[in-house]
Amino acid sequence: MDQFPVTDGELQVGGLPLTRLATRVGRTPFYAYDRELLTQRAATLRRALPPALKLHYAMKANPMPALVCHMTKLVDGIDVASAGELKIALDVGADPREISFAGPGKQDGELWQAVAAGILVNLESAREIGPLAAASQALGLPARVAVRVNPDFELKSSGMKMGGGPKQFGVDAEEVPALLRAVAAAGLCFEGFHLFAGSQNLKAEAIVEAQQKSYQLALRLAEHAPAAVRFLNLGGGFGIPYFPGEQRLDLAPIGDNLADILARAAHALPAAELVIELGRYLVGEAGVYVARVIDRKVSRGHTYLVTDGGLHHHLSASGNFGQVIRKNYPAAIGNRMGAEPGEPCSVVGPLCTPLDLLADRMALADAMPGDLVVVFQSGAYGASASPQAFLGHPAVTEILV
Amino acid sequence: MDQFPVTDGELQVGGLPLTRLATRVGRTPFYAYDRELLTQRAATLRRALPPALKLHYAMKANPMPALVCHMTKLVDGIDVASAGELKIALDVGADPREISFAGPGKQDGELWQAVAAGILVNLESAREIGPLAAASQALGLPARVAVRVNPDFELKSSGMKMGGGPKQFGVDAEEVPALLRAVAAAGLCFEGFHLFAGSQNLKAEAIVEAQQKSYQLALRLAEHAPAAVRFLNLGGGFGIPYFPGEQRLDLAPIGDNLADILARAAHALPAAELVIELGRYLVGEAGVYVARVIDRKVSRGHTYLVTDGGLHHHLSASGNFGQVIRKNYPAAIGNRMGAEPGEPCSVVGPLCTPLDLLADRMALADAMPGDLVVVFQSGAYGASASPQAFLGHPAVTEILV
Repeated sequence: MDQFPVTDGELQVGGLPLTRLATRVGRTPFYAYDRELLTQRAATLRRALPPALKLHYAMKANPMPALVCHMTKLVDGIDVASAGELKIALDVGADPREISFAGPGKQDGELWQAVAAGILVNLESAREIGPLAAASQALGLPARVAVRVNPDFELKSSGMKMGGGPKQFGVDAEEVPALLRAVAAAGLCFEGFHLFAGSQNLKAEAIVEAQQKSYQLALRLAEHAPAAVRFLNLGGGFGIPYFPGEQRLDLAPIGDNLADILARAAHALPAAELVIELGRYLVGEAGVYVARVIDRKVSRGHTYLVTDGGLHHHLSASGNFGQVIRKNYPAAIGNRMGAEPGEPCSVVGPLCTPLDLLADRMALADAMPGDLVVVFQSGAYGASASPQAFLGHPAVTEILV
Repeated sequence: MDQFPVTDGELQVGGLPLTRLATRVGRTPFYAYDRELLTQRAATLRRALPPALKLHYAMKANPMPALVCHMTKLVDGIDVASAGELKIALDVGADPREISFAGPGKQDGELWQAVAAGILVNLESAREIGPLAAASQALGLPARVAVRVNPDFELKSSGMKMGGGPKQFGVDAEEVPALLRAVAAAGLCFEGFHLFAGSQNLKAEAIVEAQQKSYQLALRLAEHAPAAVRFLNLGGGFGIPYFPGEQRLDLAPIGDNLADILARAAHALPAAELVIELGRYLVGEAGVYVARVIDRKVSRGHTYLVTDGGLHHHLSASGNFGQVIRKNYPAAIGNRMGAEPGEPCSVVGPLCTPLDLLADRMALADAMPGDLVVVFQSGAYGASASPQAFLGHPAVTEILV
């Protein structure tokens, strides 16, 4: 991975050589998120995408409060997936008018919190209308809603399909007109639509196609809307490369396509703000996971680097988070970046399970106890998506640097 | 699953009807572990296995302090996998003489803690000798060690292979004689051997074979031991049924085989205590995970029960913890146990990911919001093995009842 510079054989994260950074943190393992890379990524997106397009951060990808605080300054809104995430977003100063809340199975208490906070709720089910109306009436505040639509198409080539066919997410497109009537009848404040077809996609043409179809679907559904569409979230799905052979997403055709959609929307949905919602793409490449080698162990001819980190901190790098076939995340010995790769070795953690595998037969620089293993592409779905209590090891530290 | 009685259409857990239990807990989701089932399981093992055999609880399977406290009264020793687990074992009153500590990548601090606590350390690497000797000298206490052996065979048909071939666990059998010389030279207090060939095995004949081979290997290695073998841990590996067609393990041949090994060990290793170490088998079937239905949603003809629980509390039931092919854990609507199964439906959680699936197209009683979904076989590798912080939902409650 080329986003972190190397100086004197050491990876630089947040402008510090890795060994100095580890000393500053005071312990391993840790996640480090590079503030400047986050800023750069947002700037890259702003350059590639039309200026009128709004950029949201889906904080489920990384809810570390300091990072969310930094992101609020770079994006136009924050998407939360629970009342817990909402608390963080508000604590770090996100504007409630620019917070939206999606997720199936929202609890009544969460819906009341959303109304009290003044944020936008993405309706996933007709069931949410009742509690929202009750909260609105009791609090004397508008219940701001958009309708999350389960489209009648899929995002092709995506890591996770989240629309098309039967889904727990959103309301089936064909049921939306009836839902909109119910929204109006209940006196909710309709603001627009949210469509999210899938995630982790590296093919620009698939994203372009999904955005076009999402826009067209929203346009059809807008005919049934009880009020002008002021908010149209076309989802995200922008992927980052994890595995050999994967290329970074080409933003140019996506920018052109969104400019085309914006131009058409200026006539067809003149009141609408168009939004894309990105999580992993904004933060994934800016983060590394760093663990220290505790032991170098040769068993029957195969070398294991046993580290103080592992599956309990980084479930997805261990291959146990949605992957069907385990592949190695990009990794390196961060304090020996200049060294030639040695014989393939495996990087494992301290857990008593063979699942605790960070790198399987990978050609890394020859490493010794004390050296620092770095797992790249770890800024999203890392610490918060891992079973940190497993086997009673300390929780991982996270820093924004 | 037949271990929990049903009365008036309600599952009974810990002697209480499920709806009453949920009210007692005060919130959903929760894990409930049935104290009486834990006691019964230990008694069943005691009846099936020879009286002289020692039974250890591997608390990695479930480290809830109240449960570990209960287990300490039922078993002869506790196996810990980290200093964090050691703290819990000591806090709940386990006898340090009967605590053993296994795990690759033990940190120096953890080894010092082990010596200070007076527990037995299962050596996984020659690297551990130095810190143990230093701690022993500094503290004026013996460093009690057993050698964890990576055998030259595998446990056939096991869910996880943890021995045979190159492994991060233990010391290769052929390297053990040299290690034993180093143990003696460093003045460590040698007590015996630990062999653990694999886990989650439902075939008695495979376990019998592994135990025989483990015993024979230990006997060969004992010739190189610097002191009499006082401790011989033959591992565990006893599985529990999770999926359709799986049968409970037949303990009778395992008991006969262990009686045979004990009889031979009485002559060959007269000072040795023989131990088996079980985690999942002791606690897995005694636990249920209970989540409340928040919404019943039909999308394009398919019914989803959206619950307040999911992958973030029960990763393994979602199929994302080592499973190659996702299968449904046994599940039921715990307050409608008498009802006929309806059309197949899917049970999902509140997370914005299609991975958040507790039951996929399963024929359950027709359920409505407020009903309680029960996932059985959830007493092991549940709460502690799940990414509870994922998406900011509250942590799960655990009760022993």
